[in-house]
Amino acid sequence: MVKENKPLLLLTNDDGVQAPGLVQWIDAIRSLGEIVVVAPDSPRSGMSSAITAFNPIRAALLKEEEGLTVYSCTGTPVDCVKLALNNLLDRKPDVLLSGINHGSNAGVCVVYSGTIGAAFEGCIAGIPSVGVSLTDHSLSADFSQAMKYGKQVAEKVLANGLPDGTCLNLNVPDIPDVKGLKICSQAKGRWIKEFMEMKDPVGRPVYWLTGEFLNQEPHNTNSDEWALDQGYAALVPLRIDMTDYSFLEKIKDWGNG
Amino acid sequence: MVKENKPLLLLTNDDGVQAPGLVQWIDAIRSLGEIVVVAPDSPRSGMSSAITAFNPIRAALLKEEEGLTVYSCTGTPVDCVKLALNNLLDRKPDVLLSGINHGSNAGVCVVYSGTIGAAFEGCIAGIPSVGVSLTDHSLSADFSQAMKYGKQVAEKVLANGLPDGTCLNLNVPDIPDVKGLKICSQAKGRWIKEFMEMKDPVGRPVYWLTGEFLNQEPHNTNSDEWALDQGYAALVPLRIDMTDYSFLEKIKDWGNG
Repeated sequence: MVKENKPLLLLTNDDGVQAPGLVQWIDAIRSLGEIVVVAPDSPRSGMSSAITAFNPIRAALLKEEEGLTVYSCTGTPVDCVKLALNNLLDRKPDVLLSGINHGSNAGVCVVYSGTIGAAFEGCIAGIPSVGVSLTDHSLSADFSQAMKYGKQVAEKVLANGLPDGTCLNLNVPDIPDVKGLKICSQAKGRWIKEFMEMKDPVGRPVYWLTGEFLNQEPHNTNSDEWALDQGYAALVPLRIDMTDYSFLEKIKDWGNG
Repeated sequence: MVKENKPLLLLTNDDGVQAPGLVQWIDAIRSLGEIVVVAPDSPRSGMSSAITAFNPIRAALLKEEEGLTVYSCTGTPVDCVKLALNNLLDRKPDVLLSGINHGSNAGVCVVYSGTIGAAFEGCIAGIPSVGVSLTDHSLSADFSQAMKYGKQVAEKVLANGLPDGTCLNLNVPDIPDVKGLKICSQAKGRWIKEFMEMKDPVGRPVYWLTGEFLNQEPHNTNSDEWALDQGYAALVPLRIDMTDYSFLEKIKDWGNG
């Protein structure tokens, strides 16, 4: 299925295998190597690093041509990565690219994002992994700038690798002329007013997730949210080890073992 | 619903509102304050920080008595926390306790765990939050040691709070005499051999998630996996800001903005 002499790029996303952000991205990076796509068969937004614990999953081979193989999978983004690495691929990918996501995954959105969940999964498996997102949810979004910066970062990662346990989160603003790439930290923020309460047809309350994003450090000029607001693409390195080492030192005396 | 003068404890889990680990835990900590439970109506293991993006969720009031209110919710663990904080509670909880989980959430399991997803969510909302897990998946597990250490940590957190952006992950080994509490880092590890391939009734391949845990640093005596192996309860502080600041400095020259 895959030639040994070219880099192998594993692609996935959380918007599903048919999403324009993935379909256009495949074309944009075919020159970088052999591409294998294993992506959900329908949208899985907000799936974070969820795995399918109680049911089996399936994969379907949708396309197999020179340099490109495409599978859909009934699981979550993380399931897609696991299935690719454990069962579908015959060698280890040189890079995992997740996206291009329809919508921002900057700031605290990394916690909820299936796009980033898939990048984390690649990272856990020892593969240099990058999540790429455009700050526009629409199906007709213009991915040209996101593809330009995404390819730039993918080339850097193919050339240099990434440290074990670290992956990258790239967000690109939805403007025609992005000003450049900034290396950033994850902005502190949260969502507020998160549910719209409605009544179902028989009058019982139901709650739809919605909400407003609250940037809790709007003046932090090192943060990804700030860079995006200013018209820059924002690249944040994320680590799988979430230990808070500085607080760990402070609570050493809580231990009694 | 809730008296102002006692601490308010928000409880949730990912094993569902009926799980023995939650039911027994409620009894064990009723003395600490007013308790409100908002937990999934059925198991949501491996849901990580997933949110329900495309469908409405519902809540049902199951119990309302002196000092204890219990809701079930059709959403994920994170949905439960969001719904509690946005719509169900009339004041901000003093602590969020997630669990007691049936099964370990040590090491890299924090990435996949709905128990920890709920604790992250509380943390994002500015509430001191703790995930508690016992390293035994069975319904008939003995939670006495996990409840003892969990209550100890909950009391510490009620008394001292936690830094903004930091939550706690407590894992307790499934042994009768736990040796004590150790303050630890998140062990580096991953799962391998993750799927069992089977055939469905008409002969098509399906993949069931399974796997073996590979501890990639078995000799790290500061890690949670090591502490659990040695018979200690392991407490790891986790932070929501996943930025890899040391790698960030190294790739500053990737920026061009």
